[in-house]
Amino acid sequence: MVIQAEATTPSAILDRASLLLDAFDGPGRLTLAQIVRRTGLPRSSAHRMLERLVQLRWLRREGRDYELGIRLMELGSLAVHQDRLHRAALPFLHELHRATGFVVHLAVLDGSDVVYLDKIGGDLAAAIPTRVGGRRPAHCTAVGKAILAYAGEQRLDEVLTAQAGSRTRYSISTKAQLDAELTKVRAHGVAVEREESLPGFGCIAAPIGDIGQAAVAAVSVCGPLDRMLFDHRLSAPVRTTALNIWRHVDDGQVRVRPTLQQHARPLNAGPTGRTLADQRARHYA
Amino acid sequence: MVIQAEATTPSAILDRASLLLDAFDGPGRLTLAQIVRRTGLPRSSAHRMLERLVQLRWLRREGRDYELGIRLMELGSLAVHQDRLHRAALPFLHELHRATGFVVHLAVLDGSDVVYLDKIGGDLAAAIPTRVGGRRPAHCTAVGKAILAYAGEQRLDEVLTAQAGSRTRYSISTKAQLDAELTKVRAHGVAVEREESLPGFGCIAAPIGDIGQAAVAAVSVCGPLDRMLFDHRLSAPVRTTALNIWRHVDDGQVRVRPTLQQHARPLNAGPTGRTLADQRARHYA
Repeated sequence: MVIQAEATTPSAILDRASLLLDAFDGPGRLTLAQIVRRTGLPRSSAHRMLERLVQLRWLRREGRDYELGIRLMELGSLAVHQDRLHRAALPFLHELHRATGFVVHLAVLDGSDVVYLDKIGGDLAAAIPTRVGGRRPAHCTAVGKAILAYAGEQRLDEVLTAQAGSRTRYSISTKAQLDAELTKVRAHGVAVEREESLPGFGCIAAPIGDIGQAAVAAVSVCGPLDRMLFDHRLSAPVRTTALNIWRHVDDGQVRVRPTLQQHARPLNAGPTGRTLADQRARHYA
Repeated sequence: MVIQAEATTPSAILDRASLLLDAFDGPGRLTLAQIVRRTGLPRSSAHRMLERLVQLRWLRREGRDYELGIRLMELGSLAVHQDRLHRAALPFLHELHRATGFVVHLAVLDGSDVVYLDKIGGDLAAAIPTRVGGRRPAHCTAVGKAILAYAGEQRLDEVLTAQAGSRTRYSISTKAQLDAELTKVRAHGVAVEREESLPGFGCIAAPIGDIGQAAVAAVSVCGPLDRMLFDHRLSAPVRTTALNIWRHVDDGQVRVRPTLQQHARPLNAGPTGRTLADQRARHYA
């Protein structure tokens, strides 16, 4: 009886719904049997919840197949467009794309991955298999390295524990490599990536946040290696874009991801040990 | 006691979660008090669920404010990119943008609105306030009219009942106007829109689906009125794009939105009264 009661608490139901939706991350279309296998939920319970999720348009059903539904498209789009960092960044991302001709990404750190909040590019964009809402292992990307350079040691350990993450033979694979790379990022203010994520392509990224403090996000330009200029001609506009975005985050309360708030510690925090959010709030007080 | 038990069924919890997330459609950031006001949920129950949704990263919390979270960005992005129609359409949308230079939209009907599955355009895209996952009243848009021309009467009544939907002084506002307009769409195979959605801009759209049958989606080009060509020079490539997309929907099972499956009836269905999905399935059997 106790177990049954527990299984129907609101939290338990939400966890199950989350588990059900997470099952679609990868395959796309799933039958009830496949969903039961992937989630381990009881068949009848899974079926009832799936049908409700279809009614709510979080899923849609075609015959025996379930797929992610239109309401998730809408909520996801709202989540991106209501994001204050994204809103502040948008004009600067377009400007950076116009000025450089390369594909521009805006990304945040989530666990050991980066998640892209925006991607702007012309025809070149189609050649780079990233997408808004998509994720990549942070240490294989320039945006990830730009943020990690200002993250705490605990986060770096997490990143390298997630071993499945290496993308190409040039990807960083040891703590020593990562440490050396992040030292370079802190020295130059930009992170560089050459074929560590995608063969034939490279990126230059700059962290977004108070200089020398925890970065809340990063902006990058990406393009074919033979057309990228790994010097100030590209790094200067990328850094300027990052600074402009940070200056325009609109209401003075810094937007730090919950995961960052929980885990990140500025490497060179002041003696008061105040967090970035505290400091920023003070700036505007 | 019965009421309490009912309030914690999985379906009731999912409905509440959906209500909570829907509250963010518009304002963006909400305090607990605002959420309670908007949803009518009991404060303690709302608070517990919100905190769980934060843990699941469907929401994030900054101080006292809740916002839509990163997991919704991811699920929304997956929903779009796993969509088979979208996948089939993508290369043709880029081709249409390259060929015309205008902003290209792919949209489906959802209730009385269209929801955009993709938007492709260069600098011009920023001037048009549509977005992937965003919605507009169907009868004010070319894509909407292209789909409605092949929808059932019941749907047309729904569309015009949603009166809040008119966007500009040129928007369609009566059933007679809508009927006349949809007759033109069926005669020409394309829908035209001039400043009915956005002052200074126009669109040409073509329905995607078996010709003369229910349309499952539509594709359009949009641009400044003074640069649009409302004749075959633009309508021909738009129609060709719609045909190509429909031919390439990849696995033979037509992708019709659940709402379309429930409501749409081909205006000129054959004597067997078979649905579009039945017919398409037969094609590939």
